[in-house]
Amino acid sequence: MKKREALNLVKPHLTEQRFLHTERVTETALDLAARFHVDAQKAMLGAVFHDYCKYRNLEEMKQVILQSALPDLLLEFHHELWHGPVASILVKSELGIDDDAVLSAIYWHTTGHAEMTTLEKIVYLADYIEPGREIPGIDKIRTIAKSDLDEAVFHAVRNQMLYLIGKSRKVYPETLNLYNALV
Amino acid sequence: MKKREALNLVKPHLTEQRFLHTERVTETALDLAARFHVDAQKAMLGAVFHDYCKYRNLEEMKQVILQSALPDLLLEFHHELWHGPVASILVKSELGIDDDAVLSAIYWHTTGHAEMTTLEKIVYLADYIEPGREIPGIDKIRTIAKSDLDEAVFHAVRNQMLYLIGKSRKVYPETLNLYNALV
Repeated sequence: MKKREALNLVKPHLTEQRFLHTERVTETALDLAARFHVDAQKAMLGAVFHDYCKYRNLEEMKQVILQSALPDLLLEFHHELWHGPVASILVKSELGIDDDAVLSAIYWHTTGHAEMTTLEKIVYLADYIEPGREIPGIDKIRTIAKSDLDEAVFHAVRNQMLYLIGKSRKVYPETLNLYNALV
Repeated sequence: MKKREALNLVKPHLTEQRFLHTERVTETALDLAARFHVDAQKAMLGAVFHDYCKYRNLEEMKQVILQSALPDLLLEFHHELWHGPVASILVKSELGIDDDAVLSAIYWHTTGHAEMTTLEKIVYLADYIEPGREIPGIDKIRTIAKSDLDEAVFHAVRNQMLYLIGKSRKVYPETLNLYNALV
């Protein structure tokens, strides 16, 4: 599938702002893929479809979680954490994308986990550092991402945890596992 | 066992400063026990012996962890997390203290865990708020502890996590579980 075709497929599922974000994530992921020697097609597909289920009805996502192999534990956490895992199911059943490496990058793009593949890290990081993001400390992470993927992911997940705990919000256990693995 | 007898038993295992800390933790735990209707004898024993293994040789603690039912996972984390679990084994084998509720309060006093008993929370919190501690925000937690044990423990564990992540240090998964359970 070509990038334009993929973007056209995801577009009706997103708001205009979210589609522009998706385009930026895709370009960022392609840059990272070239830099860290990951298949460009896989990085493109993971990035284009990472937010495919961002605007799904919460009840529909809940049913997908309950009726699939996805962990019910997700339901104890903020629904913001549901759309990645749910998309890993629905981009396969609805769009026929069946590359496990791509599906896994979509699954883990919000929470991360302890033993991420390079492709998973690229989609996770591209989502965090794409040029439209305005987050304290983000420029430092963009600079680090030019040379050290793990170090950049570490700073991203560390920032994310400090943000969530600062707001007294729950942190998904796999997010801590990613942080601990990279300390 | 009376408080003085217990303190005399633990004294040779501690530095002078640590012994003074232990006395303050004991008084704080007794206050909390009276306030939250927990057995004073259990609170006293948990508090007096919580740091019993603080100054054990690291290699000895490592062997206790490997040769007991304690999780090997501990060894992947800072040795500061070892002395509570190790003490839960050694105060039993060396001192004959065999009250499981007390041993469990000693075990979890540093990391916490998701489903803490009131006694465990009291020893955990007493260790954090005893009057010798000078930690940013500690007075607020001391005030909260006068009326709401869970809220006070939540602020303590939240502070602890922000401190560790701020210093880019690992966080034990059970500590996150305690935080998530209390959010």
